[in-house]
Amino acid sequence: MPNGRNRQILLVEKPAGKLAPTHFRMAEGDIPAPKDGEVLLRVRYISLDAANRAWMHGATYRSAVEANTVMAGGAIAEVVESKAPGFSPGDIVFGDTGWQDFAAVPARHLSQMPRLKPLTHLLSVYGIAGLTAYFGLLEVGRPKAGETVVVSAAAGSVGSMVGQIAKIKGCRVIGIAGGAEKCRWLTSELGFDAAVDYKGGNLYKDLKAATPNGIDVYFDNVGGDILEACISRMNLYGRIACCGAISQYDGVPSATGPRGVPGLIVVKRLTMQGFIVMDYMDQRERALADLQAWVAAGQLKVQEDVIAGLENTPQALIGLLAGENRGKRMIAV
Amino acid sequence: MPNGRNRQILLVEKPAGKLAPTHFRMAEGDIPAPKDGEVLLRVRYISLDAANRAWMHGATYRSAVEANTVMAGGAIAEVVESKAPGFSPGDIVFGDTGWQDFAAVPARHLSQMPRLKPLTHLLSVYGIAGLTAYFGLLEVGRPKAGETVVVSAAAGSVGSMVGQIAKIKGCRVIGIAGGAEKCRWLTSELGFDAAVDYKGGNLYKDLKAATPNGIDVYFDNVGGDILEACISRMNLYGRIACCGAISQYDGVPSATGPRGVPGLIVVKRLTMQGFIVMDYMDQRERALADLQAWVAAGQLKVQEDVIAGLENTPQALIGLLAGENRGKRMIAV
Repeated sequence: MPNGRNRQILLVEKPAGKLAPTHFRMAEGDIPAPKDGEVLLRVRYISLDAANRAWMHGATYRSAVEANTVMAGGAIAEVVESKAPGFSPGDIVFGDTGWQDFAAVPARHLSQMPRLKPLTHLLSVYGIAGLTAYFGLLEVGRPKAGETVVVSAAAGSVGSMVGQIAKIKGCRVIGIAGGAEKCRWLTSELGFDAAVDYKGGNLYKDLKAATPNGIDVYFDNVGGDILEACISRMNLYGRIACCGAISQYDGVPSATGPRGVPGLIVVKRLTMQGFIVMDYMDQRERALADLQAWVAAGQLKVQEDVIAGLENTPQALIGLLAGENRGKRMIAV
Repeated sequence: MPNGRNRQILLVEKPAGKLAPTHFRMAEGDIPAPKDGEVLLRVRYISLDAANRAWMHGATYRSAVEANTVMAGGAIAEVVESKAPGFSPGDIVFGDTGWQDFAAVPARHLSQMPRLKPLTHLLSVYGIAGLTAYFGLLEVGRPKAGETVVVSAAAGSVGSMVGQIAKIKGCRVIGIAGGAEKCRWLTSELGFDAAVDYKGGNLYKDLKAATPNGIDVYFDNVGGDILEACISRMNLYGRIACCGAISQYDGVPSATGPRGVPGLIVVKRLTMQGFIVMDYMDQRERALADLQAWVAAGQLKVQEDVIAGLENTPQALIGLLAGENRGKRMIAV
């Protein structure tokens, strides 16, 4: 067992409104000893995701996070000590370690990962973000070449890959993002055909101008007003892949849903389908092969936003919820 | 050409709020002469549908109805005179004749119908209502035996058949309807397993009690609060077949959509899919064969609500929007 202390970030209170640094505190404990069936992990990169905030509202696709416990979060980690078959010191794994230096985790909750370089790609393009983009777009959105695909939170970890994969598949791609700079980046660096700045004050007008042929596939990361605007632009038989609702996570959830539901759903024969990447894990190898080929060919650019220091994790999540990141945000512990 | 006058009901004004008799007036005109390619029809049974009201809001899956014209509406009619190949006097057809005694209609907008008895079945179980129930439930809802199916406007023309077809397919079926009497009818006469009276004041509680295992398929005819309540009860991977939004048609459309969209759509991996029966007409023969077999075997009871007199059509629609009908409402002209 390694010597030293285990720094941990606790969620001290579930936020009623906006998440703030005061909802967290740093603590120190002993480095835990793994029990039978467990593995002791040294956390290397903590994934920051909008879903972290959603977990504070209550049970979702996982149980709720509780006050006065280590904040939950997925991470890439290295095995330090193993009391479970199939895991050896030096192995690289993905699992919910929480926001801390070390974690003892049941081996059945861990996934073995390849030791590729850079390791950060295991959280971005080859991690949950990349697989979410891949399966959500291709299995739920089902775009055909020539169709118009719109993605929100387009400069984020998932959105930036959704748009690029849609381009690879021959679609016209429009990204919705906050701020002129992000929008320029989407079109100049990532090859999006157009971008709409939702902070520009003319969402409906700008979206209409950017989608003269309507929208066939909308990949929704945000919910709320942007979902509502996209529903109004959907074409007959359009597909909406519901991936998340960032706009609803940080604060009191909206008391209402988007207008046009179900009226426009009926009239336009739309399909709205929610999905969770875990549901597609039996097809993971195929997805990783495609993603690796696209990265190798330079067709898929990987944007990462790596922040150093466990102590910066709360502020990094708060900033992500405010949309300050570009690409996959993570903490190098 | 027959002698006599042609009574017509005009929509004199598009309603801003609730539909009222004053929005219509009776007129009389000459019986029209069919042009080349047209057929002169004697209207026999006018179909009353919640969608009639939706057409007054603007273009939907058809163009909007306009003020100071004959109110649009589908009907079963008999050919009186034909200037189109393939149509002869005495033929029974379905088409949008509007609310009048006689109509000259382009033959390409008409469907030939069998001369079966009673003719009213061509508007109920073998008409749009029956086919909507059949395709919406089986192709969009895709229920499996043992699953729980919930249908709203369950005592209506579509809902009453959705529930019975779901029972034929081995599902547990709950109908949502307005009033204790309708609810009793659903369970005692149509074989529904349970019914929820949405006017009873405890929609969420009563729906929960009636669906102890949650909802796998929700056939939505109404939108609004009932859709919202059903979303909250959906099981993982549940399907919502969006057929209509009666609750939104008569009055100013709701300024908001249902809560839980898209949040619960994501978390529960739900699919909401809108459909229009016309999209499935290539499979019509198969559907009619099934429906006829079920009717013949006594598995599918056909409830019709036939009101005599063209002059009663406005009030019959207003009453339908208020939920006073049981089964398929139509006017015998």
